Amino acid sequence: MQSRMAREIERKFLVRDPRILDGRQGERIIQGYLAKESGSMSTRVRIRGDRAYLTLKSPKAGCSREEFEYVIPVVDAEAMIANHCAGRIVRKTRYLIDHGPHVFEIDVFEGRHAGVIVAEVELPHEHTALDLPDWLGDEVTDDNRYSNFVLATIVSGLAVAEH
Amino acid sequence: MQSRMAREIERKFLVRDPRILDGRQGERIIQGYLAKESGSMSTRVRIRGDRAYLTLKSPKAGCSREEFEYVIPVVDAEAMIANHCAGRIVRKTRYLIDHGPHVFEIDVFEGRHAGVIVAEVELPHEHTALDLPDWLGDEVTDDNRYSNFVLATIVSGLAVAEH
Repeated sequence: MQSRMAREIERKFLVRDPRILDGRQGERIIQGYLAKESGSMSTRVRIRGDRAYLTLKSPKAGCSREEFEYVIPVVDAEAMIANHCAGRIVRKTRYLIDHGPHVFEIDVFEGRHAGVIVAEVELPHEHTALDLPDWLGDEVTDDNRYSNFVLATIVSGLAVAEH
Repeated sequence: MQSRMAREIERKFLVRDPRILDGRQGERIIQGYLAKESGSMSTRVRIRGDRAYLTLKSPKAGCSREEFEYVIPVVDAEAMIANHCAGRIVRKTRYLIDHGPHVFEIDVFEGRHAGVIVAEVELPHEHTALDLPDWLGDEVTDDNRYSNFVLATIVSGLAVAEH
């Protein structure tokens, strides 16, 4: 039994210059959505490296949300992704980049989302000052098209990083 | 990390004669529904005695469904029931009654569902023969009004056991 209950404050940006990832080692992530009902918690299953997680996230209030996360057997996660996500699946590679006191998570999406590269940073408070590195592009915190759930279900008209 | 992945075959009945419960010790259960999207897995949180569980159930195919269950911290379950179930909550006391090779789970509902008493039995196969005890009433396996989720959201026109 492992868990994490957290209140997430996140800001999200496009990545203007993906050369920042050159030579770095990322971690493969595959995730799917088991249930997503408007106004309720979403239920996400994720395989990250050799571990699997079940994560419940509340709807956003501003840029914060409540989250519960549990480690589950990889074999369960594989069955859920294969049979119970109705194809709402995202594959990506995640890179971590330190910048001052913050860590940016850079997700490079694959498959039908190839070309989409998004950087996310968790902050202690909604108004924490953030010095933006020059490889970032536009902020998309409030642009739902870049939520992983929306990417898992639809993809259209997204900005694609220049290579 | 504890889990159970199971394929459930269940039959469900009303309880005609609740005196079968006289003198028996039951266990309090409170459960809520975090997400329920038509055609997808439901996400249920349950506190049973001093333990808590997160359970994912697939939609039914006949009288069978796939289920994944994980033990979670009680404090997480309490927060989920208080904040994230949109009032879709059921409280009941569960009794176990042996009958031949089978165990019937009898749920005595409380609050706005008071008077509803349902007996459920898990079977190894859909066509397993089942000798019905005389305290059972009508079978309601296919009557969605007696699903815990439907009880949690709506209640109307249900048969109530005579006391």
